[in-house]
Amino acid sequence: MARSGSKSPMDLWSVAGARVHKRSDQVATEEPMEIRLLAGSQRRTVAVTMRTPGHDFELAAGFLFAEGVLGSRDQVHRLTYCTDPDVDADQHYNIVQVALRGRELPDLAVLERHFYTTSACGVCGKASLEALHLRGYPRLLPGPQITPELLAGLAEKLAAAQGVFRTTGGLHAAALFDRDGALVAVREDVGRHNALDKLVGWAFLEDRLPLADHLVMVSGRASFELVQKSLVAGVPVLCAVSAPSSLAVDLAREFGMTLVGFLRGERFNIYAGRERIRLESQVSGA
Amino acid sequence: MARSGSKSPMDLWSVAGARVHKRSDQVATEEPMEIRLLAGSQRRTVAVTMRTPGHDFELAAGFLFAEGVLGSRDQVHRLTYCTDPDVDADQHYNIVQVALRGRELPDLAVLERHFYTTSACGVCGKASLEALHLRGYPRLLPGPQITPELLAGLAEKLAAAQGVFRTTGGLHAAALFDRDGALVAVREDVGRHNALDKLVGWAFLEDRLPLADHLVMVSGRASFELVQKSLVAGVPVLCAVSAPSSLAVDLAREFGMTLVGFLRGERFNIYAGRERIRLESQVSGA
Repeated sequence: MARSGSKSPMDLWSVAGARVHKRSDQVATEEPMEIRLLAGSQRRTVAVTMRTPGHDFELAAGFLFAEGVLGSRDQVHRLTYCTDPDVDADQHYNIVQVALRGRELPDLAVLERHFYTTSACGVCGKASLEALHLRGYPRLLPGPQITPELLAGLAEKLAAAQGVFRTTGGLHAAALFDRDGALVAVREDVGRHNALDKLVGWAFLEDRLPLADHLVMVSGRASFELVQKSLVAGVPVLCAVSAPSSLAVDLAREFGMTLVGFLRGERFNIYAGRERIRLESQVSGA
Repeated sequence: MARSGSKSPMDLWSVAGARVHKRSDQVATEEPMEIRLLAGSQRRTVAVTMRTPGHDFELAAGFLFAEGVLGSRDQVHRLTYCTDPDVDADQHYNIVQVALRGRELPDLAVLERHFYTTSACGVCGKASLEALHLRGYPRLLPGPQITPELLAGLAEKLAAAQGVFRTTGGLHAAALFDRDGALVAVREDVGRHNALDKLVGWAFLEDRLPLADHLVMVSGRASFELVQKSLVAGVPVLCAVSAPSSLAVDLAREFGMTLVGFLRGERFNIYAGRERIRLESQVSGA
């Protein structure tokens, strides 16, 4: 426990029909991480999330950016692990401190993020989308034109980059590709949202946002929240290995994002934003 | 939008190499759901979660039980959808009201659930487990003895029961089996935690808790939170199609749960609680 690597060795019993043997294998590490904001003499814990250790500063930055707490790199003075002598040393790496340049903590009411409502009373997908408009989300820029051939190569590149995943089968991945399909960065985590937060947090800390000329690919399904996080980062094309949800499609359409699902080799489905994908072949059923 | 079924029709472009055609397909519905507690004249929104519509009362009950807000069926007077005339009719089914028998709302401080810490300062896997001990989680009962043959049949039964999943590829499932491997109930959702909350909520409302004589199987990975929810429901054996995380294994071992991962046909790994599985064949590497 208090594990710090992305993989943890674990003794287990492996059963295959009548054959049983004891062995050791790696599983994906899951540990809680606390995100603390510091400003002047103020200090506030804003979240504790279960995550796979690694790229923790990016996770903190990406989470705060996605939630609207941070808007630009300039607001951040520095990121550190906790070095509080009152905290056990093996817990230091589970606490990330985000020191802001300002003297005051930002408004944390935005963290009431699960309340996707526009009124005191209503809650539905439509209200959720309206709430994002109210938060000032713009429609995405036209961005790149993508060929089907480029998309067909992404899944393999993502799989090749997913080192831990292949060993443990236990991690989600989010990868950033440029308009030519070259892999720019990949991040992994037991939590699907964390993997994307780490990726966007990396771009945030590198001052590369918005990612207007890029594609993002995620290893699992495309949910409302993954589309939302991509939208905030200005990503024009989001691809998923598995299915999108209805609200993910609604959100992508509402804000002009290209959403690709079931991307497996040269097969894929386009759920939104077809205008960014160059389909020159025979189109049937139109 | 404001979709009410578990599947939503969606127009899409299907691409397979040079073949492109437009068609309609089903995707899993995702809609926000608000859970409200009512007691006497008091009313409080306790959560808004993205979920797949269906079994909403079970989701509300299971969530509140897992979070420690509800302890027994007797506390619940009735569950209803919102019928507030101020709310648009198409939103009524996204608001579940849980009316309690008591005159006072229960302590909702327990909902600070992401703070798995035992002190003001520390946070780590060990502290997370200690926090559960402090919340009074008991070790599990011995429960049933399970044969490998029984486990080998579960994945197929789960897949056969997953109607929507096969159509949309977009849903997680959680299934309850009795000690003989007979399917008792299955619930699906875009959210992995929701699927298990619905299943446990069903058992809660049927007054069947604890599930001391049962197995639960989940369609994806086994995270800390899924083990925790199973533990609260008294489930002695949790099986997952994919990998567990390190903290999921730690938690299962700490509280005496049997945790099986990568359960695919007659192959599986036992990460914790081997004593409940009857391994009579030749054991190597011990």
